[in-house]
Amino acid sequence: MKVALSGPEIERLVQALGKLPGLGPRSARRAALALIKKRETLLDPLTVALREAAEAIKVCHVCGHIDTTDPCGLCVDPRRDDSLLCVVEDVGDIWALERSGVYRGRYHVLGGTLSALDGRGPDALNIPALLDRIEGKTGLEIVLALSATVEGQATAHYLTEQLSRSGAQVTRLGHGVPIGGELGYLDEGTLAAAFKSRRPL
Amino acid sequence: MKVALSGPEIERLVQALGKLPGLGPRSARRAALALIKKRETLLDPLTVALREAAEAIKVCHVCGHIDTTDPCGLCVDPRRDDSLLCVVEDVGDIWALERSGVYRGRYHVLGGTLSALDGRGPDALNIPALLDRIEGKTGLEIVLALSATVEGQATAHYLTEQLSRSGAQVTRLGHGVPIGGELGYLDEGTLAAAFKSRRPL
Repeated sequence: MKVALSGPEIERLVQALGKLPGLGPRSARRAALALIKKRETLLDPLTVALREAAEAIKVCHVCGHIDTTDPCGLCVDPRRDDSLLCVVEDVGDIWALERSGVYRGRYHVLGGTLSALDGRGPDALNIPALLDRIEGKTGLEIVLALSATVEGQATAHYLTEQLSRSGAQVTRLGHGVPIGGELGYLDEGTLAAAFKSRRPL
Repeated sequence: MKVALSGPEIERLVQALGKLPGLGPRSARRAALALIKKRETLLDPLTVALREAAEAIKVCHVCGHIDTTDPCGLCVDPRRDDSLLCVVEDVGDIWALERSGVYRGRYHVLGGTLSALDGRGPDALNIPALLDRIEGKTGLEIVLALSATVEGQATAHYLTEQLSRSGAQVTRLGHGVPIGGELGYLDEGTLAAAFKSRRPL
């Protein structure tokens, strides 16, 4: 029941948009239509932004962050605390933590988690660079900000072992009820963690 | 609390994506990250698709549809029924109706609805072309597929008056319970319409 409804160029635009996370086939179509209808305010600026970003992006050789400079802005920022190193799975996690404004140390991007299912071992992760980076440093706290999933926790476990020789203090993020979260909607694991980490008021 | 987290090129890409319908600030950031990380499979194809679409798109002078040919594919398709003309507000409505596969006639895009609030009168809509198009035709049914909103219905009312001289039969879409809709979530207007249009089983 596929109808030849619009030209191939429009179809290809819908296809390309539909591959973005968060855009399904319908929203891709709506976005394509908006782009086509507002060529000067939407389509042309996006085309330019994509081309400029493609030309400018670099992966930081120190931490694995994506930026337009190498080393990245976070690695060279003198105001950040060198005694704190936060290990994350992905660049998006840095962005999320930076939005929260809670952390002022350095970062290290693993590029994923260990996964027996996907055959992703330690070699696939940015771990050697991490070990190089912390070698010889003293008074360092390494915060493992990894997902609270089986794979994230397996990765945290592996890293804790690897880091045990370094003398750094290794910590992990706290678990508990998310802010704004309603108890009735939480899974049992989160509830159990929240109970274990309860505090006096 | 804005942090200089990534280069201006990346920020501009996030801004440009955030203007698309369906993408808020967070999903725009996620989409930007996906584009940057998968340059060959996501970013480059989207850049090309945008440029090609921008070069190819045309507005059909007959019906107002957007396509890569003028007249558009729907206007020149010989398999479509010339005795049916469906009037819609927007190009997106054509796409939605075509997906449903229920309609095989021609279309006419108004480009919006009458709106006293936004100061949009009949002159702002593609109505003269509609009247020209149907002049002298006989045996024509004009389906007003407009939104079931105050503005959509005001537009339908106005069009019905304008079209009364043409001799065409003017119809509107049926109102009722949407397929998959649960009664408890429906507004009173829809329920009232559904009751009025009830049928024997």
